[in-house]
Amino acid sequence: MPKKLILKIILIIMSIVGIAMFLPAAVALIYHETWTALSFIICAVPLTLLGIIGINRFSLGMHIEDNLSIAEGFLIVGLTWLLMSLFGALPFVISGDIPFFIDAFFETASGFTTTGASILTDVEALSQGALFWRSFTHWIGGMGILVLTTALLTKLGIGGQRLVNAESTGPIKDKSAATYKKSAALLYRIYLVITIAEIIILCLCGMNLFDSCIHSFGSVGTGGFSNYAKSVGAFNSLPIEIVIGIFTLMCGVNFGIYALIVQGDIKKALSNTELKVYLAIVAFSVIFIGIQIHSFRDSFFTVSSIITTTGYATADYDLWPAASKYILMLLMFIGGCAGSTGGGMKVIRIVMLFKFIREGMKARLHPNLMYTAKIDGRKIDQDIMMQSAGFISLYLGLTFVGALIVALSGIDFTSSFAASLACISNIGPGFGMVGPTCNFSFLPPLIKVFLSVLMIAGRLELYTIILMFNPDAWRARKKHMAVQPDILK
Amino acid sequence: MPKKLILKIILIIMSIVGIAMFLPAAVALIYHETWTALSFIICAVPLTLLGIIGINRFSLGMHIEDNLSIAEGFLIVGLTWLLMSLFGALPFVISGDIPFFIDAFFETASGFTTTGASILTDVEALSQGALFWRSFTHWIGGMGILVLTTALLTKLGIGGQRLVNAESTGPIKDKSAATYKKSAALLYRIYLVITIAEIIILCLCGMNLFDSCIHSFGSVGTGGFSNYAKSVGAFNSLPIEIVIGIFTLMCGVNFGIYALIVQGDIKKALSNTELKVYLAIVAFSVIFIGIQIHSFRDSFFTVSSIITTTGYATADYDLWPAASKYILMLLMFIGGCAGSTGGGMKVIRIVMLFKFIREGMKARLHPNLMYTAKIDGRKIDQDIMMQSAGFISLYLGLTFVGALIVALSGIDFTSSFAASLACISNIGPGFGMVGPTCNFSFLPPLIKVFLSVLMIAGRLELYTIILMFNPDAWRARKKHMAVQPDILK
Repeated sequence: MPKKLILKIILIIMSIVGIAMFLPAAVALIYHETWTALSFIICAVPLTLLGIIGINRFSLGMHIEDNLSIAEGFLIVGLTWLLMSLFGALPFVISGDIPFFIDAFFETASGFTTTGASILTDVEALSQGALFWRSFTHWIGGMGILVLTTALLTKLGIGGQRLVNAESTGPIKDKSAATYKKSAALLYRIYLVITIAEIIILCLCGMNLFDSCIHSFGSVGTGGFSNYAKSVGAFNSLPIEIVIGIFTLMCGVNFGIYALIVQGDIKKALSNTELKVYLAIVAFSVIFIGIQIHSFRDSFFTVSSIITTTGYATADYDLWPAASKYILMLLMFIGGCAGSTGGGMKVIRIVMLFKFIREGMKARLHPNLMYTAKIDGRKIDQDIMMQSAGFISLYLGLTFVGALIVALSGIDFTSSFAASLACISNIGPGFGMVGPTCNFSFLPPLIKVFLSVLMIAGRLELYTIILMFNPDAWRARKKHMAVQPDILK
Repeated sequence: MPKKLILKIILIIMSIVGIAMFLPAAVALIYHETWTALSFIICAVPLTLLGIIGINRFSLGMHIEDNLSIAEGFLIVGLTWLLMSLFGALPFVISGDIPFFIDAFFETASGFTTTGASILTDVEALSQGALFWRSFTHWIGGMGILVLTTALLTKLGIGGQRLVNAESTGPIKDKSAATYKKSAALLYRIYLVITIAEIIILCLCGMNLFDSCIHSFGSVGTGGFSNYAKSVGAFNSLPIEIVIGIFTLMCGVNFGIYALIVQGDIKKALSNTELKVYLAIVAFSVIFIGIQIHSFRDSFFTVSSIITTTGYATADYDLWPAASKYILMLLMFIGGCAGSTGGGMKVIRIVMLFKFIREGMKARLHPNLMYTAKIDGRKIDQDIMMQSAGFISLYLGLTFVGALIVALSGIDFTSSFAASLACISNIGPGFGMVGPTCNFSFLPPLIKVFLSVLMIAGRLELYTIILMFNPDAWRARKKHMAVQPDILK
């Protein structure tokens, strides 16, 4: 285990989080929240200085990717999210907005993983600075902190290719890897444009700038933190619901699709299988639930919020008929498209699931045929199929184990399942005791820590965390994968 | 579609069910239930006569297996279970024990599929003859009506190999097919011996002969019908619970294992991976739940009853802590071993699930390696892996869709999920409104029919039913699989 590498990562994360904290400090100053502003500056200055000085002091800029093991690659990503959450939680504790560290850690992990699960019983009591930081973590986490860190780490001499593998980009490996390599900067710009567009449009709908920022961060990052107890329902405005609904839906789409559109290849963008399936699932769900609850307004907003794993609410869907709740639970499992800011299993894996069923049928009919499953016209490699089957198995398994562990704390059957699913899929609110009108505050501290880890595992597509504990992974060195740091070129 | 073939199947099923009905008629006579006895004879005589005469009259004994399509093979099996349930329901209606046909159909389908879900609100009000028939359907269905029909159909000139494919024997194809071909008669004898052994031992524990038969049929067939409202709890006897618990556990094991033991290959029998995993799951569950509910007696009996998908109850596990209920729900999914009388996904597929996770990990670490998953020392073929992934996907998918459809009738979230799972896994009781102290009587007729089909689909491992509606299956003719009718040799 390369101690220098780990030290380097810690220092980089410290400086990133430190620099990011100056923004909420500024917001707090605007709102004359001196103590909150001070809390952020107390954290921001040393984190930034220690990080930047440390990197230079220990002259850690050497190339080390050639002998980086895969587990080390995964370790970098896992550590990034863990450290972001640990450092990011500090100002909440110092300012007194969230006095207990475990609660603050849960809230920050929930932010950076764009989950949106909250332990706050009275969100409106928080200072404006803290509220801003809370939602800003969504935005940072949203696109995948990876786009940022990959770029940075590449500049600092750590190849990004391995990280792309560790990050969540769905099962079509060569495509997403290529997309990432070629257009990391482009994706980042698209993300920024969408955010600014939503802020402006929400302001035009009558929201003030602060609320617009909060809800844009929450929807573009598909996180779901609001500064109102009633979430988006507090505005009771059809235009606002439509705008947020559309923007969350947009951010549940693979950002590679937008890159294609920007590059002019609209035909290829629109012929994407995952996109079509995603839209079909949304359409079916909105219609099904809309008919059952007699409100297409609530149905549209909730479906858009749940499938993208955002978690904003305008209605207490926990009171809806059981069949509608099933649809929502299925959407919680499914999640957004691969390469989006959404969580869950990803639509492409549901497509894979149907491929499995079809291939299973074919194998029964023609036992000696090789399988020939295709997506978007290209054959799916056998190892990709295996990875997907493994991922889906692991996902369901972890959700059940997670529910079991939460249930051990005495929470009821449905709620413990919902809590586990809502965290692993990065949704936020679930059903029952963790439903849209409730929060996670009542859970014992150990369960909060466990759920925080589940969120990070879910955000990093499980294997990142699991592989860190796999001895084989520490040995496996992919020499052939030593890549050029060309992400930013 | 070969009309002659279908006619032949109908006639064969008629005669089998007809002949079987003479037994409950005799039981009814012993208990001086004249009308019940008459009801069974009214059904038995014409069914038997029409069946036997019909087969001879239309001289349907020709060989037709060479040009049998796969869908036709599946059709035979699917039709068998459907017709058995339709014909088997008649005496209940005529005798007045279950006056409504849909209820009687549900109860009989539940019997033949060894599910054990009941629509009876007062089981103790039934006549002894009807109770005997109800449990006898478990016994017939138990080992798989297939062992019977395969033998019979083979004699009548329809190859059994294709049926073995359609029947539920788990994912290791060559092994199970070989087992079936070589030892169908042996398995049948083992099944008989186990049944008689349990009847005798239960009598020795103080049960009367009638109750012993009922509960032996229910446990050997892993069905779960009892003649008491309190199920096995009615006896409140530790020895009886231990005996039934052990016998159900035994019948959740692949009967091929017993065949190996009978043939003297004890070492091979005990080294079976699925058996070891099965026992490990049972041990873990009994200990976990036992600690949580402070009763290893209830824990052992319930775990044994649920993992084998029997469904006998001594305690209302619906009142147990949520974590224990999770374990039970997982057991409901898992089910018995392949080649046992138990339902569910089968333990071997859970083993496969872990293989997927491991292979998925390996694929991430060594992208260019071929996968090399093994079970019991032999490599798992790629098409078997695909079939398993497809099966698990289909199983989970159907359970959710089933729950959704049940929920549409207004049943609550947990109960509708439990009803769907309990039927597809052939367990019987579930949780909530269909928990161990409740029954399925309150459901609307259409939902009862739907759940009956789910039971049959679950019993025949899903693909049987699905493939019947697949046009490709009707075209696929496996010429190379035309087999010798050697099952009985």
